[in-house]
Amino acid sequence: MSQQTSQQETFSGNLLVAQGGCPTPVVNASLAGVISEALNHEDEIVEIYGALNGVTGILNEQLIDLASESQQTVRALRQTPGAALGAGVSKLEAQADFDRVLDVFAAHDIRYFIQIGGNDSQDTAAKINAAAAKRDYALRVIGVPKAIDNDLAVTDHCPGYGSVIKHIASTVREISFDNAATGRHDFVSILEVLGRDAGWIAAGAVLAKRRNALLEDPPHLILLPEEPFNQSAFIDAVQATLRKQKYCFVVVAEGVKDPEGNPLGADVASADASIGAGEFLRTLVEQNISGVKARAAKLGISQRTASLNTSKTDGDEAYLAGQAAVKAAVAGETGKMVTLVRDDKDATAYSVRTDLAPLEDIANSVKPFPASWIGEDKMSVSYAFTKYATPLIQGENTVPFDSGLPKFAILAAHKVERDLEPYSPAQ
Amino acid sequence: MSQQTSQQETFSGNLLVAQGGCPTPVVNASLAGVISEALNHEDEIVEIYGALNGVTGILNEQLIDLASESQQTVRALRQTPGAALGAGVSKLEAQADFDRVLDVFAAHDIRYFIQIGGNDSQDTAAKINAAAAKRDYALRVIGVPKAIDNDLAVTDHCPGYGSVIKHIASTVREISFDNAATGRHDFVSILEVLGRDAGWIAAGAVLAKRRNALLEDPPHLILLPEEPFNQSAFIDAVQATLRKQKYCFVVVAEGVKDPEGNPLGADVASADASIGAGEFLRTLVEQNISGVKARAAKLGISQRTASLNTSKTDGDEAYLAGQAAVKAAVAGETGKMVTLVRDDKDATAYSVRTDLAPLEDIANSVKPFPASWIGEDKMSVSYAFTKYATPLIQGENTVPFDSGLPKFAILAAHKVERDLEPYSPAQ
Repeated sequence: MSQQTSQQETFSGNLLVAQGGCPTPVVNASLAGVISEALNHEDEIVEIYGALNGVTGILNEQLIDLASESQQTVRALRQTPGAALGAGVSKLEAQADFDRVLDVFAAHDIRYFIQIGGNDSQDTAAKINAAAAKRDYALRVIGVPKAIDNDLAVTDHCPGYGSVIKHIASTVREISFDNAATGRHDFVSILEVLGRDAGWIAAGAVLAKRRNALLEDPPHLILLPEEPFNQSAFIDAVQATLRKQKYCFVVVAEGVKDPEGNPLGADVASADASIGAGEFLRTLVEQNISGVKARAAKLGISQRTASLNTSKTDGDEAYLAGQAAVKAAVAGETGKMVTLVRDDKDATAYSVRTDLAPLEDIANSVKPFPASWIGEDKMSVSYAFTKYATPLIQGENTVPFDSGLPKFAILAAHKVERDLEPYSPAQ
Repeated sequence: MSQQTSQQETFSGNLLVAQGGCPTPVVNASLAGVISEALNHEDEIVEIYGALNGVTGILNEQLIDLASESQQTVRALRQTPGAALGAGVSKLEAQADFDRVLDVFAAHDIRYFIQIGGNDSQDTAAKINAAAAKRDYALRVIGVPKAIDNDLAVTDHCPGYGSVIKHIASTVREISFDNAATGRHDFVSILEVLGRDAGWIAAGAVLAKRRNALLEDPPHLILLPEEPFNQSAFIDAVQATLRKQKYCFVVVAEGVKDPEGNPLGADVASADASIGAGEFLRTLVEQNISGVKARAAKLGISQRTASLNTSKTDGDEAYLAGQAAVKAAVAGETGKMVTLVRDDKDATAYSVRTDLAPLEDIANSVKPFPASWIGEDKMSVSYAFTKYATPLIQGENTVPFDSGLPKFAILAAHKVERDLEPYSPAQ
C-alpha cells in the first residue's frame, strides 16, 4: 500500500473513526453512518478501525476492527445511547501527543481520520490535520458534529440536540398531565435541565406548548443561563401564573446564575454542596409564596440517554453526517467538518443537506443562543425559536426490546494488534 | 327507576367512577376499562359519570358524563399519564362528608361507585359503602387498585408499579451505556427514585441486570428505605465496586434514612432545605473517596408519567381491573376491591386473573417489601424479587405522536347538571 499519493493513483489506506466528548442520544448513529459508508468504498478504504475512548485510544494504540462487527450490531447502534467506542477526553495540546498520533496512524496506515465530536474534538482534529501536513503524512481529516448543547458554529444545528429537546418537551408535557390532575391550586413544578452556559436545551422545552392548545400550556417560565436570575421578577411571575393557572411549570437550566455570577443553589464556600438550580428554586418558592407546594426534578444524564424518544429527524441527520464525512474524505477533502444546512429557512417543508466548513471555524467559536429569541420578560423564548426547533423533533424511532428492556448494541470490539511500544501521554 | 331492589327485578342506576391519590402511568387505563365495560351493561347501568378530583368532586357535585366521550378519547386514555378525572384528596373522615356523598349519589341515582385508588381511597370507599348500608341506600362499591409503590395488601401487585420499574430499569440501563463511555475509571452514577417508606420501586431497578450479561451489570448498589443507611459500609461497597468496574451505579430511594431516622440529605433544622438522598450521596462520595467524580439525577414525578415506556402487561392489567370492577358490581358485589392473583407462581408462563377482597382488608394495611428479598449486604435484592418482578415489565405500548410529541387524551368533560345546593366540606 502506498504511503504517498498522487492525483493519478487511487488514494487508499485505512480509516479510523473516534468519538470525543460527552455522549449524545445519536452519536452512535453517526458512527453507524461512518461504518456503513466506508464499506461502500473498498477501492479507497481498506480497513475500518475505531479508536477506543477517543484520542486516548489513539495515543495508547487501542484500535478495534469495525468492519468485522455484524450488520445487526451496526444497525442497532442507531438506537444505542452512550458512545460505543468510548468517548471521554477529546482535547490534545502537547506536540509530543500529536507526534504519537501520527506514529500510530503511520503504523496502521491510517489515511482517513473521522472525528465525531464537539468543539474540543474538532479542535484536536484540526491540529492532527495540521501536524500531518507538517510531517507530509498523507491524511484526510473530517469532523462530524455532535453536541446536545447545539453550540457548534456554522452548522444550522447539531446532531444530538433535537433528540434531547424532544425528550425534554415530552417530559414537560407528561409531567403537566400529572400536575393538572392534582386537586391543589398552588403547585409549582420545576424541571432542571442541562445547560451550563447556553440556553439551547432549556429553550427546547417550549416545544411542549402546542399550537392548537391553550396559550397557557406549560412550560410557563423558562430560565436561561444567558439571563442573570432576578429573584423578585421570578416570584412575581410565578404568582401571576398561579392567579391564572392551577399550577406553574418552570424549566430551569442548571447554569442559571445570580447577579453575582454564582450558579443558583451553589454553596459559595463549597461548590460540591450545591443543591442545584431546581432544588434552589423549589425552596425559594415555598419560602416566599405562602401556601404553595413545589416539587423539583433533575433529569441529569438521562436527558442525553433517553433512547425511547429520540427524534427520527435527528437520528437520520446524525447518520447522514457520518456518511457525508466518509464521502468527503474519499473525495479528497481534509481539515473540514460536516455541517447541516437548512435548505430554505422560509419553506414550509423542512429539508437539510450537508456541507463542509473548515475545522478551524468550528474549533474556536461557539454559537450562543440568540438574544433576539429571548422574550422581553427574560423568562420565555420567542416563536422564531419554536419555528427553528420544531422540525428537529419530528419523527420517532422504533427501539427493539428484549425481555422488557430496550435492546442496545454492544460492539464485539475485536482488537487490532499493536505495533508500537506503550506510550505515556504528555498530558 | 327503582330506589330499592329485589332479587327479582334488575338492579339498575347510574355508575360513578373516581380516581384518588397520586397518578400512575396506567390509572387512566383502569378508567378506560371501567368506561368500556360499563357500556356493556345497558340494562343495569344507565349513565356513566366521572367525579372530578376524586371525592372532592363528589362533595362539590362536580360530575361529568363519560358515556359521551368519543371512542378515540377512551382508547387514548390507555396511554395518557396523569389522572384524567383529576385526583388529589382521597380520604374522607367526617360523618357530614359521608352524608353529603350519599345525598349526591341519591340526587343522581348513583348505584355503582367505582373507586380507583390506593390505601386512602379504598378506606374512603369502604366507609362510603358502610354509610350507604346504614342509610339503607342501595349502592354497590368496588375498588380498583392503583399504587406505584406496590404497597396494597392482598393483591399480588398493583397496577402502576410495573410501568414505573420498567421505566426505571430502562433508565438505569440507558445511563449505564453513557457511564461506560466515559474514559474515566472512578465514576459514581447515582439515581434517586421514589419511595418514602418502601423499597419496592428502588428494588425494581435490579431488572436492569440482564441474565445473559455480566453479573456486574448495573445497578451495583440499591439502597432501600427499609435499611438504615450505613455510611462506612456504603463507602466500602462503592470502593469495592470501583476496584472491579469502570463505574459504580447506585440507586437510592428518596426515603432512605440515617440511623437516627432522618432522611438522607434533610436539613434537620429545616426539612425544606433537604438536598435529597441522591445529592447527599454524591457529595458524600466525592468527599470520602479521593479522585472520584459523582453525578446524581432525581427523576421525580417523571417516574410516574413516562408514557413511552409503560409496561403492556401493566396497562392491560390496569384495564382488566377496571373491567373486573364493573363486572363485580353488576354481579351484585359490594365493599370489595379487585385484586390481581398470579395463577401459578411456579409456572414458567406468567398469568394473572382478577379476584375480589374486602375493602377493609386493603384499607388498613400495607404490604412491606419482604425482608427475605433484601440481600445480606443490605444493598442488593434477591433473585426471588427478580423472578417476581420480571413479568410485570413485559411488553410495550405504542403511543401515537402528534408533531413530535406523544398525543394524550383530554376529556371533553361534559358537566352533569347540579341538583343540590353548594356544600362546604367538613374537612
